Amino acid sequence: MEKEKPVTAILRIHCPDQRGLVARVTDFIQRNNGNVVALDQHTDKIESRFFMRIEWELDGFELTKEQIAPAFQHAIATPCHMVWSLDFSDRIPRMAIMVSKMSHCLYDLLARYQGGELPVEIPIIVGNHEAMAEVAKQFDIPFHLLKITKENKAEQEKIQMKLMKDNNIDFIVLARYMQIISDDFIKAYPNRIINIHHSTLPAFVGAKPYHQAYNRGVKLIGATSHYVTADLDAGPIIEQDIIRVSHHDTPETMVQKGKDVEKIVLARAVEAHVARKTLVYMNKTVVFN
Amino acid sequence: MEKEKPVTAILRIHCPDQRGLVARVTDFIQRNNGNVVALDQHTDKIESRFFMRIEWELDGFELTKEQIAPAFQHAIATPCHMVWSLDFSDRIPRMAIMVSKMSHCLYDLLARYQGGELPVEIPIIVGNHEAMAEVAKQFDIPFHLLKITKENKAEQEKIQMKLMKDNNIDFIVLARYMQIISDDFIKAYPNRIINIHHSTLPAFVGAKPYHQAYNRGVKLIGATSHYVTADLDAGPIIEQDIIRVSHHDTPETMVQKGKDVEKIVLARAVEAHVARKTLVYMNKTVVFN
Amino acid sequence: MEKEKPVTAILRIHCPDQRGLVARVTDFIQRNNGNVVALDQHTDKIESRFFMRIEWELDGFELTKEQIAPAFQHAIATPCHMVWSLDFSDRIPRMAIMVSKMSHCLYDLLARYQGGELPVEIPIIVGNHEAMAEVAKQFDIPFHLLKITKENKAEQEKIQMKLMKDNNIDFIVLARYMQIISDDFIKAYPNRIINIHHSTLPAFVGAKPYHQAYNRGVKLIGATSHYVTADLDAGPIIEQDIIRVSHHDTPETMVQKGKDVEKIVLARAVEAHVARKTLVYMNKTVVFN
Amino acid sequence: MEKEKPVTAILRIHCPDQRGLVARVTDFIQRNNGNVVALDQHTDKIESRFFMRIEWELDGFELTKEQIAPAFQHAIATPCHMVWSLDFSDRIPRMAIMVSKMSHCLYDLLARYQGGELPVEIPIIVGNHEAMAEVAKQFDIPFHLLKITKENKAEQEKIQMKLMKDNNIDFIVLARYMQIISDDFIKAYPNRIINIHHSTLPAFVGAKPYHQAYNRGVKLIGATSHYVTADLDAGPIIEQDIIRVSHHDTPETMVQKGKDVEKIVLARAVEAHVARKTLVYMNKTVVFN
Repeated sequence: MEKEKPVTAILRIHCPDQRGLVARVTDFIQRNNGNVVALDQHTDKIESRFFMRIEWELDGFELTKEQIAPAFQHAIATPCHMVWSLDFSDRIPRMAIMVSKMSHCLYDLLARYQGGELPVEIPIIVGNHEAMAEVAKQFDIPFHLLKITKENKAEQEKIQMKLMKDNNIDFIVLARYMQIISDDFIKAYPNRIINIHHSTLPAFVGAKPYHQAYNRGVKLIGATSHYVTADLDAGPIIEQDIIRVSHHDTPETMVQKGKDVEKIVLARAVEAHVARKTLVYMNKTVVFN
Repeated sequence: MEKEKPVTAILRIHCPDQRGLVARVTDFIQRNNGNVVALDQHTDKIESRFFMRIEWELDGFELTKEQIAPAFQHAIATPCHMVWSLDFSDRIPRMAIMVSKMSHCLYDLLARYQGGELPVEIPIIVGNHEAMAEVAKQFDIPFHLLKITKENKAEQEKIQMKLMKDNNIDFIVLARYMQIISDDFIKAYPNRIINIHHSTLPAFVGAKPYHQAYNRGVKLIGATSHYVTADLDAGPIIEQDIIRVSHHDTPETMVQKGKDVEKIVLARAVEAHVARKTLVYMNKTVVFN
Repeated sequence: MEKEKPVTAILRIHCPDQRGLVARVTDFIQRNNGNVVALDQHTDKIESRFFMRIEWELDGFELTKEQIAPAFQHAIATPCHMVWSLDFSDRIPRMAIMVSKMSHCLYDLLARYQGGELPVEIPIIVGNHEAMAEVAKQFDIPFHLLKITKENKAEQEKIQMKLMKDNNIDFIVLARYMQIISDDFIKAYPNRIINIHHSTLPAFVGAKPYHQAYNRGVKLIGATSHYVTADLDAGPIIEQDIIRVSHHDTPETMVQKGKDVEKIVLARAVEAHVARKTLVYMNKTVVFN
Repeated sequence: MEKEKPVTAILRIHCPDQRGLVARVTDFIQRNNGNVVALDQHTDKIESRFFMRIEWELDGFELTKEQIAPAFQHAIATPCHMVWSLDFSDRIPRMAIMVSKMSHCLYDLLARYQGGELPVEIPIIVGNHEAMAEVAKQFDIPFHLLKITKENKAEQEKIQMKLMKDNNIDFIVLARYMQIISDDFIKAYPNRIINIHHSTLPAFVGAKPYHQAYNRGVKLIGATSHYVTADLDAGPIIEQDIIRVSHHDTPETMVQKGKDVEKIVLARAVEAHVARKTLVYMNKTVVFN
């Protein structure tokens, strides 16, 4: 079904705000006979910054894929001091998944993938524990076991990074991967590592957030998907959601109830990323329509 | 606080979709030196229809208020077959409230109004029951009691309509007004009468929706605000929300819990209408950002 | 993990309300040295009906499994005119899943099952279409393809019912099974067939509810899990939930967004059923804590 | 409407868990011919603590109001080491409201009170700013202005506490009262001062939580009502809820959207407190059905 959709170009932009930006960008596309299928923009009045995502069909467009970037750079991006990226919908992103012992987020991603809902390729699943090997096998995806200890962490991460490189991985999903990623790894995938944290950040940073939530006596628990940065659990938030709990809940029932929120919140973030609908600026994520 | 905001013009448009519409409209404003403060657009691919709301500051704009409409009509609206409206933010809408016996929606609207959150004038409150006279008095708003019986309904509606006209009413909020409005009245205020129905329409149309909900054993109850049309509870929906219920709930506790949803849903709809963010097309409401 | 939990007895009761019912039931268990681990009761004041679920550990209980039912019947159930059922937590329910072409609910149930979150056995998956055969295979569960046409429906249902019987099926989950079940089949599994309907019933009964929702212009879509009765989409509701939509949504995006709600709502209903927390009375479902 | 309800006694209990507690308590009431209208209990397995709320009609009960407490103490509370409280539904709680400049929570409470939804008396409103004097006047409730400076704080609090005492205040609602209450004041009203904090605690403790939320780039904002303790924003949570925000939101629109959540969350907490449905243990609040 996804295959039959017409191929589109997707432009994501941010730049200092000024008058006429929407008109300039849309004019560029329409002058070249592009049929716009999606357009969303946002002006951050506080930062005086303009954000835009525009998607148009390549069929009939008068510039070839290769000509678009230089033409846009010259005509608009340079004069407007734009930071921008250009993607094509027929370029299927290659996604790696990293896991530990829990299966709920992994299964959810793989089920969407297998069901044709998530237009990605998944060349590898990397685990620091053998538990998820069987799930990977169910879906015929190579599983790489790289156990992590204090002693071997640096070494194992090098292997992980080589795996990512060898498999041309575009972005990485930490599907309840219970290890901290080193700065070098993060720098290699800026705003391209998506984590799911099992609390509504910034509440309950760090280990065992449901136990922290239980101890605090909250009436809501939740989950946060965010891009991973060097600061633990402090990266730009993509999506959050919650579920009600009560005095009847224990840390164990919170863990159980939380799983549903975690997997849905993570999936929504991955879907937005894959659809090239996210844009990070100053530790915040614009999520376009 | 509202008063200090710069005066803006607000243009709402819909027309057959074609290329370049966003560029044409934004260009019209920017060519005349307008500073755009909000822009939202939507293309309904199924109906091939384009929708747009654009708001810009009048200060520095090179057309006077009076010149905008004819200039826009000539340059863009006519060639693009647009249906459109133009409003100015310093034109405070005049809102009438119609009520029966229940106070929660009325109080909520008046509290927002008094707290400076709802930029409207409220020249009159019309009740078909004396119960709300005292609330109107608390807020120093003239209350008109027009009791309705089968026999006098047509006559009383004429008085209501005259009241609306004499008070230059722009739009009417039915804040749990438990009477059906006649077609003539509705035609006089097309998409300008906002009702709150105490169910998530189209479930539980008509009388006593909480009792219907109780009998059906639902796990959620809710409320719907919509523009009133000739078909009962079938007008274009502006906003909906829900609250959980359980087997512990009776029709009475549902009525009580539902009040909070009703008043919030109604207020959100009124706020969207007052901010000129709604646009009705084919019995649906586009609610712009 | 589930396996290590102490074995419990679970008693679900309803009867005409009268004084002292909680005391009588808890006294029966405690007199026999039972350790109550969960207790929830409800009195429906409108129907004057009492509902109760009580769960206690069998370890140390002075009655054997076999003795409990006759003792309870004699001492309490008969004098109090109770309708009741007794279950033991070490009796793992046998669940059949029926599917058509869509995979999201099926994957979600199987992932929970495989992840040890759903204490059931799943001896068979029955499909009216071959699409889900592969998913069943991934999880090593026998898949029975029984295509349905107008002509063969009665015949195929007989085979389905024989399959259920041969596999000692306790209850059946219709995981987006797009066929109407005949009355005979339903009668064989009273309150033991769980369906997921992709709307917040009673809105949008019948076919293509998302298309109906799109046409009505709603701002919320949702899902309802319910026990199947002879009246289409009118059985006792177990669980419901919703997700927001906007004018940007098409029937296709509603279908996509709705999938997440459907699978979570269905899973919650199945979990409640499996934990013996549901009790149907007069077309409503009490869902105990 | 409230007045016509039969008078009930409400018993709230917690004690070390042991077998037979529900039976003992219900038996005590039913032996004395009490008609139980509500019963809810909870066992905290982690703390081995039992919690119960039971409500029964006094009409026909064989003990007078005065006899209940000593009888219960002797027969059950002492042997079971219970901490307990007894209330009667015809004893209308006297509630004070403390406010600063914002009207939304105040109006919401007063509207419920005036609408007969909140069975309390409101003898006084105390403000540290004159802004809310007019609202108090609208509802004919005495308003006491006690401006707070660093220098006069201790002195003004003494006057506040005297006001509370002179007016026989049972509990105090801080309806966005932007001052920290001193420990002495708090100790005089243990678990009887209800605050609304405009974040989902423990996120964004302290000043300007919406600005903190904006800076963190969250996708949800919320509110928390809790009993006030000596630790700022760390008291036992009664209720929480959230609302979605996006990159379009500024601190100002968050403040505006948050108001609706704040007032509803505060009202739910106050309603639970007034209905004697809350019970604090170890910095957590059990909220009974």
